[in-house]
Amino acid sequence: MSIASGVFKRVVVGRALRSDRLGETLLPKKLALPVFATDAVSSVGYATQEILLVLAAGGALFYHWTWLAAGAVCLILLTVVLSYRQNVRAYPSGGGDYEVATTNLGRNAGITVASALLVDYVMTVAVSISSGVDTFLSTPALAHLRPHKVEIVLGCLVFMMLVNLRGVRESGKVFALPVYSFMVGIYGMALYALVRVIFFNDTLLAPTAHATIVPTAAPAGLALLFLVLRAFASGCTALTGIEAISNGVPAFKEPKPKNAAATLLIMGTIAVGMFASITVLSLYTKVRVTDSDANLRINGQPPVHGQETVVAQVAQAVFSNFSPAIYFVTATTLIILVLAANTAFNGFPVLGSILARDGYLPRQLHTRGDRLAFSNGIVLLGAFAAALIIGFDANVTRLIQLYIVGVFVSFTLSQLGMIRHWNRHLRQQPEASERNRMQRSRVISFVGFSATATVLVVVILTKFTHGAWLAITAMAIFFLLMKGIRRHYDTVKAELFTDVEDESALPARVFALVLLSKLHKPALRALNYARATRPSVLEAVTVNVDPEETAALEHDWEQRELPVPLKVLDSPYREVTPVIVDYIRRIRRTSPRDVVTVFIPEYVVGHWWEHLLHNQAALRLKGRLLFMPGVMVVSVPWQLRSSEAVAERLDEDAAAGEAERASRRHAGAELNAKAARE
Amino acid sequence: MSIASGVFKRVVVGRALRSDRLGETLLPKKLALPVFATDAVSSVGYATQEILLVLAAGGALFYHWTWLAAGAVCLILLTVVLSYRQNVRAYPSGGGDYEVATTNLGRNAGITVASALLVDYVMTVAVSISSGVDTFLSTPALAHLRPHKVEIVLGCLVFMMLVNLRGVRESGKVFALPVYSFMVGIYGMALYALVRVIFFNDTLLAPTAHATIVPTAAPAGLALLFLVLRAFASGCTALTGIEAISNGVPAFKEPKPKNAAATLLIMGTIAVGMFASITVLSLYTKVRVTDSDANLRINGQPPVHGQETVVAQVAQAVFSNFSPAIYFVTATTLIILVLAANTAFNGFPVLGSILARDGYLPRQLHTRGDRLAFSNGIVLLGAFAAALIIGFDANVTRLIQLYIVGVFVSFTLSQLGMIRHWNRHLRQQPEASERNRMQRSRVISFVGFSATATVLVVVILTKFTHGAWLAITAMAIFFLLMKGIRRHYDTVKAELFTDVEDESALPARVFALVLLSKLHKPALRALNYARATRPSVLEAVTVNVDPEETAALEHDWEQRELPVPLKVLDSPYREVTPVIVDYIRRIRRTSPRDVVTVFIPEYVVGHWWEHLLHNQAALRLKGRLLFMPGVMVVSVPWQLRSSEAVAERLDEDAAAGEAERASRRHAGAELNAKAARE
Repeated sequence: MSIASGVFKRVVVGRALRSDRLGETLLPKKLALPVFATDAVSSVGYATQEILLVLAAGGALFYHWTWLAAGAVCLILLTVVLSYRQNVRAYPSGGGDYEVATTNLGRNAGITVASALLVDYVMTVAVSISSGVDTFLSTPALAHLRPHKVEIVLGCLVFMMLVNLRGVRESGKVFALPVYSFMVGIYGMALYALVRVIFFNDTLLAPTAHATIVPTAAPAGLALLFLVLRAFASGCTALTGIEAISNGVPAFKEPKPKNAAATLLIMGTIAVGMFASITVLSLYTKVRVTDSDANLRINGQPPVHGQETVVAQVAQAVFSNFSPAIYFVTATTLIILVLAANTAFNGFPVLGSILARDGYLPRQLHTRGDRLAFSNGIVLLGAFAAALIIGFDANVTRLIQLYIVGVFVSFTLSQLGMIRHWNRHLRQQPEASERNRMQRSRVISFVGFSATATVLVVVILTKFTHGAWLAITAMAIFFLLMKGIRRHYDTVKAELFTDVEDESALPARVFALVLLSKLHKPALRALNYARATRPSVLEAVTVNVDPEETAALEHDWEQRELPVPLKVLDSPYREVTPVIVDYIRRIRRTSPRDVVTVFIPEYVVGHWWEHLLHNQAALRLKGRLLFMPGVMVVSVPWQLRSSEAVAERLDEDAAAGEAERASRRHAGAELNAKAARE
Repeated sequence: MSIASGVFKRVVVGRALRSDRLGETLLPKKLALPVFATDAVSSVGYATQEILLVLAAGGALFYHWTWLAAGAVCLILLTVVLSYRQNVRAYPSGGGDYEVATTNLGRNAGITVASALLVDYVMTVAVSISSGVDTFLSTPALAHLRPHKVEIVLGCLVFMMLVNLRGVRESGKVFALPVYSFMVGIYGMALYALVRVIFFNDTLLAPTAHATIVPTAAPAGLALLFLVLRAFASGCTALTGIEAISNGVPAFKEPKPKNAAATLLIMGTIAVGMFASITVLSLYTKVRVTDSDANLRINGQPPVHGQETVVAQVAQAVFSNFSPAIYFVTATTLIILVLAANTAFNGFPVLGSILARDGYLPRQLHTRGDRLAFSNGIVLLGAFAAALIIGFDANVTRLIQLYIVGVFVSFTLSQLGMIRHWNRHLRQQPEASERNRMQRSRVISFVGFSATATVLVVVILTKFTHGAWLAITAMAIFFLLMKGIRRHYDTVKAELFTDVEDESALPARVFALVLLSKLHKPALRALNYARATRPSVLEAVTVNVDPEETAALEHDWEQRELPVPLKVLDSPYREVTPVIVDYIRRIRRTSPRDVVTVFIPEYVVGHWWEHLLHNQAALRLKGRLLFMPGVMVVSVPWQLRSSEAVAERLDEDAAAGEAERASRRHAGAELNAKAARE
């Protein structure tokens, strides 16, 4: 099985080796920023637009509420950044929100955060790619491609899955160029706009500046408040990804926590600046966007090719018809959003590994370097994201409704955990200056908690029926699944560790059986290996399925004068498994304190289809024997010639892996030495 | 895996046990006839109709050629029956045409016949069920169901698959009633018609007697000859199933060959009689059927609900409006056709078993009593038949085109083989009277060969473009597949049996490793079992994935004062398999003449999903170790509590199986005793 699937994967995804992300070298701040900022910075690509879309329900007049909603978003963003600087310093191990919640609030809080993060990763992939493609297709020259958006989004997704399955050797450098280009693009656009307006007194107008919006509601009073709150909640997508650095502290150069905290602040400032720039520009250039194309009227008609994104419209307004600059902004937006999705592809298996370590996911996900676990994670993530993309027509606005619940559950519980953290430490800290510092920190955490909890409540209230219920359901399913897995492992653990002393008795004797049907090399090897283990009793056993073959075997046996008795079991109806099981049961009954060892020659093949032609009876027998207590099953492999190619390839892989491990060990040793010095 | 699928199957197909077909008792002629006649006799249900359909191309006037075509079919049928009486006597082992062809014409002829028979089984299922449903739906009261024919046919197919998967205890008695009822129905119908016509001077008219046929061609000369030949070829479907008895000789009462030959003659005579009766009646009652509904005009209009089958129309004509008798004929036709399909479900795995014995199919199919092999055969056969039914809209006429190629390939090669058989025996036979008998037999075989070869050529010529090419392609694929499998087995055999003496050296020492990560009961059991085998060197090995866990293990180890050294392998990147492989490779390098035994504790679980939570790392490691020469892998099973239910069930099954085997052994002993007496 594993060989067959391995061959399949080799063909599809190639031979490249996966390296730990960022495994080899530690990151200086200027490289750490692009690596961890993609998710947080990229969300400015759609946050402003989401605010405008909500407010458009009341018509273009309501757009002046944008100032309020966007201002609140900036405030919350900075608050969360400040709070997370505490997290990063207090929990530098890379466990992130999951660790903070588990340590301070208990297991259930921990897996709630984990569920939220898992949902969040799926959403990041779906939203980022959809939004990136949206922006890119917003350049007027590509308008004809817009009807194929879902297919293009899925294409990007598949491409990213393949790239990740192949195993990219990522380094900070890969991220640096696009992230910094994106920043240059957005800030450059803001600066250029400023120059044009101040020095040239130009009027910058978006393509939809003269469009009108058909209001779908005329909210006032409480309904108006609710609308503005919903706009604010939508704008809070700008905050997604802030927590990324808290999972990545170990990758920073020393002093890790300090560098991480500094990077977090820089990242937050840049993100706020970009978000503010785009928001201001969109209002200044009079961008109009609506939830449904039908509600926008350009010269009295709805837009023919659908609407263009806010970023794309702003770029068109600022750069007028200088298309290279417009392309630069939309293309870097696409790239950075794709990279943001990519961080999810990296983060998902890492979180899975941590959850597996704690027994909440299948344990094999814990052993890293195991490609299969990573691959399964990547495929799973891709499949979930694809389902969402198809289910929601790659519509960013509809997807966003599901997005921020998870993020804010994570934020809120993590900040609540931090308050507990400071409370605990304050109880143990007698020194006044330290206590002061901690109390200050606690205030920050409390402010962060209050802010994020408020947003969470707002998000749930305003978005529950818009799709948040789906995200909450998904989180509940992940939660219950992980609880169930943990409970299972706990039960098994209890079973395995109670009355351990019962297992201390050595079996009295070893009763060995070698199963064979012909006297060929695999059978002789099994026989010789069995003899080498010098069991108390050794029998060769054959099932008489075909009398002629059995007679030939008996004849050969005598000829060769083998010093082992040959036992022939009759099977008038050509069955194998039940006859052998029967025989072993009789042995077990006669001497229950013995252990029975069953030697089975097993063919090792090189092609998947050869599995259909060999070993089937042996496999079935083995599957059956496992259920009998006191029976060991020994596979004596016989490598068929066709397996040699596979063995060679495995050896090559192993050699490559060894070299890789050696280089990692080297890096690890350096790192330890450095740590020791400091 | 096998457990999980077992549970699934238990739920779907239930717990019943399969018995060998007809395994318990030998059949007297009166029971053997219905058992083996279903296929041959049932084909009279559609043979006449197929002749009429072909001739209808020239309009109703061409129906007088039916006499010629049907007469030729009767002649060929009797010839083939006479020839097969020889086969039955000369090859009474049950190997049938495959054995005759292999023995006398060589392997390639043998697997050609086998390919033809495999295709034939699939066709029997598809054609028989489709035709049975056709006839049944032809009763006017069921006309409204006709548009759902494909669904009904598929429903019958699935039902038969389930019945066969559940394992029916078939006996001759199950067959006797419907087969004899069918004969009574057809012959009774003929007799009743005779009485009505002769004594009451009634005019019997089919529902379509006044219908007109729109000719689609006006063949003359060669084209006319071709049309009549094609009608004849279509009518030859009446011959399908004649060969069934030659596979079943061992099931007859002694003297087997004589009884089988006698039954064959009776069956042939009955089949000819029925075919002739239906043909005469259909011409007398002026049944009109056409290939396409559009070409038939009843009162100037095409039939509203599609056409009715010939048998159904004849029944309506003969019994006028006495519907119980009409229902009796159509219902028994449906039942006998379904039973004919059922014989294919029985024959397919039996032929598979013989082919597997000879190395043409995966070997595990040979061990009978193995339900899985039978089940796979049944599912495969059902899937092929379903594909045909869907692909051909359950249209009997179109399916028939594919049918007879296989049958006649088998007939022709088998008769050619018989000629060779007599030639060979004549060379060795000096006695004149025997030689005379053999020469007579050879003439019969030669006539049989000439007749069937002629039909085969006619069939291929007249039907190739109508669909026979598909059957021939399928046969070619089966042929190449079986050749390939045999070649593979031969290569492997050569590999396993050359230089067998190389494998005679005993390994110098046994180097045993017990892999563990914690000191729980499964680990201790593995350790104790390993100690019981008293290896030359014994080490416990753990991979340091998590330093804390490893420290805990080392601490436990010292506490317990285990008399085995614990080796800790470092794995800075949390990999398991490569680290262990690496270590074993080093051991092998140091002492290449030793055998390395790796003990792996393996969890035995009761639910399929538990497989996802346990053993994955062990399985992967095992898969990798198999490729290393000189390494044995020992699974030390630990039965988790959840596996107990499965073990109990397996024990129950085993007990039931034992009882069944005992009863079979009893029957077998009786049989042997009887054989000895005679």
